[in-house]
Amino acid sequence: MSTDRDKALVVLSGGQDSTTCLYWAIDRFGPANVSSITFDYGQKHRIELECAREVATVAGVPNVCLPIDTFAALGGDALTDTAVPVSNGVDEETELPVTFVAGRNLIFLTFAAAYAYRHGARHLVTGVAQTDYSGYPDCREETMAALQLAITLGMDREFTIHTPLMHRTKKETVDLAVQLGALEAMALTHTCYNGQRPPCGECQACRLRARGFAEAGVHDPLLDI
Amino acid sequence: MSTDRDKALVVLSGGQDSTTCLYWAIDRFGPANVSSITFDYGQKHRIELECAREVATVAGVPNVCLPIDTFAALGGDALTDTAVPVSNGVDEETELPVTFVAGRNLIFLTFAAAYAYRHGARHLVTGVAQTDYSGYPDCREETMAALQLAITLGMDREFTIHTPLMHRTKKETVDLAVQLGALEAMALTHTCYNGQRPPCGECQACRLRARGFAEAGVHDPLLDI
Repeated sequence: MSTDRDKALVVLSGGQDSTTCLYWAIDRFGPANVSSITFDYGQKHRIELECAREVATVAGVPNVCLPIDTFAALGGDALTDTAVPVSNGVDEETELPVTFVAGRNLIFLTFAAAYAYRHGARHLVTGVAQTDYSGYPDCREETMAALQLAITLGMDREFTIHTPLMHRTKKETVDLAVQLGALEAMALTHTCYNGQRPPCGECQACRLRARGFAEAGVHDPLLDI
Repeated sequence: MSTDRDKALVVLSGGQDSTTCLYWAIDRFGPANVSSITFDYGQKHRIELECAREVATVAGVPNVCLPIDTFAALGGDALTDTAVPVSNGVDEETELPVTFVAGRNLIFLTFAAAYAYRHGARHLVTGVAQTDYSGYPDCREETMAALQLAITLGMDREFTIHTPLMHRTKKETVDLAVQLGALEAMALTHTCYNGQRPPCGECQACRLRARGFAEAGVHDPLLDI
């Protein structure tokens, strides 16, 4: 019999990394113990939400989408603010990528924990990685460790944040996806920072993805759609 | 000349504690360096938002109100879910008060940090206290310490979370408010869990407040409205 201790909630963005993590969680905890959560935070690329739903359906796990209207109200980042174009550039003041949404992963995981708190899950799974982390400080292992402690203390429940991709290169993430049988689902994922399907191939996200598949010697099924 | 290092952002709920913290911050950082942030998270008692605005006006500091639609979507707590009556009771499963909104203070402070990140403040001030903390685990000092580390690492900026009331009893908080000249503003604050002005005097929040003023030997100006 499974208990709350066995249940896992995957933060699913509809991208390559979180999709790989979903299959990792199914392998680790069993399909009946896994569900997924997606956040509609006003991202310009609405296609991500549809991709997340389709990935969850193909993987055979529930998907809930929660709204977060706060980031758009905060403004100033390239992923939600229509006044800031998506680019590979860095913010002059902070020297972080313009695509950095301050606090995004912290907020996602805290809301995921709040949802898990209500629904009896203690394992949270996220696709953050510091290997190819593109300069995002909220993807680092030490950030996740501090956050795990904050949510465990703040909700008085022992949460574990799993980051199966933390130390993998993009090539190793592709290797893992193949090993877990997640390759077919990759055709349903979304990566491109320009919101294009088929992907633009030009933005940093597309280039990182393409390099990972190339180094793994695997054909990306997303290119066939 | 003041720098980002001197600027403070107070999480202002419109209640007694956060109002005292606002005056504490003005005393500590100077009125020109202080601003306040309030969250519209779908609380049933909309009066809190108005109270926060009025308190900030009387104190002479800016107040910004950010929406958070996620808690209402999560459901299940007495402060946002119309299906759960506000009471002094505890949730049978979690043994925490039904008024506990899982993750609320973690989310408030993380969004406050995201706002501060954009607007050049490094000091965050919150009225949480573990002395009379009513069973809320997200008010504890160790939770705040873990969260300070998570937001500092996650946004790559050194934030300090100030909790001037952490170890004060309600009586000592009233003493502090008197000392800081915040007593007049207390008439504008809201405490009652039943959303009543004048306060109901029956709910746990009202009783804690009344006891604090009584023990300090101070008349609560809220009772004169």
